[in-house]
Amino acid sequence: MQTEIPTVIKLTRGVPPTEAFPTDLVIECFENVLRTFADILLQYQSALGFAPLRNALADNAKAEPDQVIIGNGSLQLLAFLAEAILSPGDTVIVERPSYDRAINIFRRAGLNVVGVPLEEDGVDLAALKEIVCRCVPRLFYVIPDFQNPTGVTISLAKREAVSELASKYNFLIVEDIPYRRLRYFGEDVPTFRDLVPERVVELSSFSKVLSPGIRVGWLVGPADLVQRIGKIAEDTYITPNMLGQGIAYEFLRRGWLTQNVERLKTLYRPRLQAMLEALERFLPEGMWFKPQGGFFVGLWLPEGAQVERVAKIAEEEGLVLSRSAGFFPDGDSSRFVRLPFCALSEAEIFEAIERLARAVSRARGNQ
Amino acid sequence: MQTEIPTVIKLTRGVPPTEAFPTDLVIECFENVLRTFADILLQYQSALGFAPLRNALADNAKAEPDQVIIGNGSLQLLAFLAEAILSPGDTVIVERPSYDRAINIFRRAGLNVVGVPLEEDGVDLAALKEIVCRCVPRLFYVIPDFQNPTGVTISLAKREAVSELASKYNFLIVEDIPYRRLRYFGEDVPTFRDLVPERVVELSSFSKVLSPGIRVGWLVGPADLVQRIGKIAEDTYITPNMLGQGIAYEFLRRGWLTQNVERLKTLYRPRLQAMLEALERFLPEGMWFKPQGGFFVGLWLPEGAQVERVAKIAEEEGLVLSRSAGFFPDGDSSRFVRLPFCALSEAEIFEAIERLARAVSRARGNQ
Repeated sequence: MQTEIPTVIKLTRGVPPTEAFPTDLVIECFENVLRTFADILLQYQSALGFAPLRNALADNAKAEPDQVIIGNGSLQLLAFLAEAILSPGDTVIVERPSYDRAINIFRRAGLNVVGVPLEEDGVDLAALKEIVCRCVPRLFYVIPDFQNPTGVTISLAKREAVSELASKYNFLIVEDIPYRRLRYFGEDVPTFRDLVPERVVELSSFSKVLSPGIRVGWLVGPADLVQRIGKIAEDTYITPNMLGQGIAYEFLRRGWLTQNVERLKTLYRPRLQAMLEALERFLPEGMWFKPQGGFFVGLWLPEGAQVERVAKIAEEEGLVLSRSAGFFPDGDSSRFVRLPFCALSEAEIFEAIERLARAVSRARGNQ
Repeated sequence: MQTEIPTVIKLTRGVPPTEAFPTDLVIECFENVLRTFADILLQYQSALGFAPLRNALADNAKAEPDQVIIGNGSLQLLAFLAEAILSPGDTVIVERPSYDRAINIFRRAGLNVVGVPLEEDGVDLAALKEIVCRCVPRLFYVIPDFQNPTGVTISLAKREAVSELASKYNFLIVEDIPYRRLRYFGEDVPTFRDLVPERVVELSSFSKVLSPGIRVGWLVGPADLVQRIGKIAEDTYITPNMLGQGIAYEFLRRGWLTQNVERLKTLYRPRLQAMLEALERFLPEGMWFKPQGGFFVGLWLPEGAQVERVAKIAEEEGLVLSRSAGFFPDGDSSRFVRLPFCALSEAEIFEAIERLARAVSRARGNQ
């Protein structure tokens, strides 16, 4: 593929590239679903979401429809969950690093957010046990597949151990799985919900497999909790946006979502490969976990390279990096860089990492 | 018009009827706007909303684009406003009765909600002054045109007096104007924003003039406040739903929104007339203010008729009434009934009020 390398490359937000969007199919689905369901999709509806889509999502999750609520993206459903079951001062555990916007939701709710270090196969179990014994959390927020921002997938053994811990210490596991279907290598691992459904709230979204702009995410959990969240949702926005839900439903009904996921995997797989090759080639002294899917590789810079300094120099090299502090509820973020690879061509990825390596080299040389 | 009268008539929620929805035009607008803006509408965007729509709304409001934020309906923007500028225990004033969901938003934010009685031409000024002197509010939430739930429109003289009071006592006027364009009789009165723009936050929505299911509302206010609300919005849902915004933009751009409003006025005007005639004919002992537009007539039942009792008997007569307590932040709600007229045919309206009158008569007879 011959592409022109831009003067400035952005390694910042984890957004899909424009070529990921199936515009023609979205238009076809919209026309079809609106002709069938205009009275419903253009009207106020239950805050729980569009019933046919709830049914389809429940089927996919092996749940009952009353265990599913659909919202304007999954992030706000996490905020509703916090409002429904947590009180200021409660402790929640997250991976360290974790999704910055989720950490922020917890902080806004006045919660005590504690991080557990990540390893190649998921959370450090000894550290998790130590924290849980010291201060039993209300919930553990985890992105088990191709984690944001590290790309880590938790092993089955660790999922089982965490599930046991949750049962023993009576806390909820909130698993956020928006990337799960974007597996480029290896085999699926059972979800936490597969293992201990009664202890799990699952969040997911169409943002990474169809479109973020349609703003459709959902939550699967105990029916009584879903009911409480539904009341909060109704009191907040009456009805979630119906048009995105209609399109998502039609994509599912036609089997087009599965086709789209396959297309995206074909698009993103070589980009992940390029990112891993580029890191091996240009930054062998760095540390990263090899993701098998998703949007991100998480890089720890070599010793002596501080990300703030590297980011400044990288801008001179034509590379924009995201700030890392937001991903860390606590602990040292000073050597971490999130590398989103889906929205760049392979050539851009190699160029970006070469620029990053030069910036690292300059930053270390300057110290 | 020959229509079959249903066994049970619902005089409950203020939703548009199915025939209000311009389904074919929505489909045409969607296809067109998505072909033009797919990269934007299917992607994550600024939490402030779709820029072309912000520009158009700002133009309409004689404001700058940075004074406009678009959300998933206007109710949540009111919640964001409360989060941005109010603290638990702060006093807010609302009309009595007022929109139940807005009162609920304020209550959830821990605010002290105080009601001011309504008169034919808007709030009782003497009562408002008395309350303001006793306990200066942070804001006055008001639905100045065809109020929900009474249908009252505030006179220009009272708008001016309230504006002066707001300037003198340094509180914000939050005017919610979703019904403003649905005027069936009489002439527009200037908005509060026309009178004292620097003291006003204006909320509006496409729910009543295009479709509720698209979930597009907006807020116009001081640019710094809009910026703060935008940060809260981003932290809550990243991006408001883009598809509804695209459709609303295209409706505005083509001049179709104005056409749709004219069509709706033609549809709703005779329904309001029917409601007022039916009340005169069947319930002359009741009290109501004659609305010149909007969705609702607010009825105070004749003395001796309690709404709880009337509602129970009405169900036996085949009429479902909405509960009234939610509209009253304080004071006596026991004789108030909200009568939404847009979603019923004229024949259904006459039949509904006849049934209501029978229920009132039975309730009074039974006391």
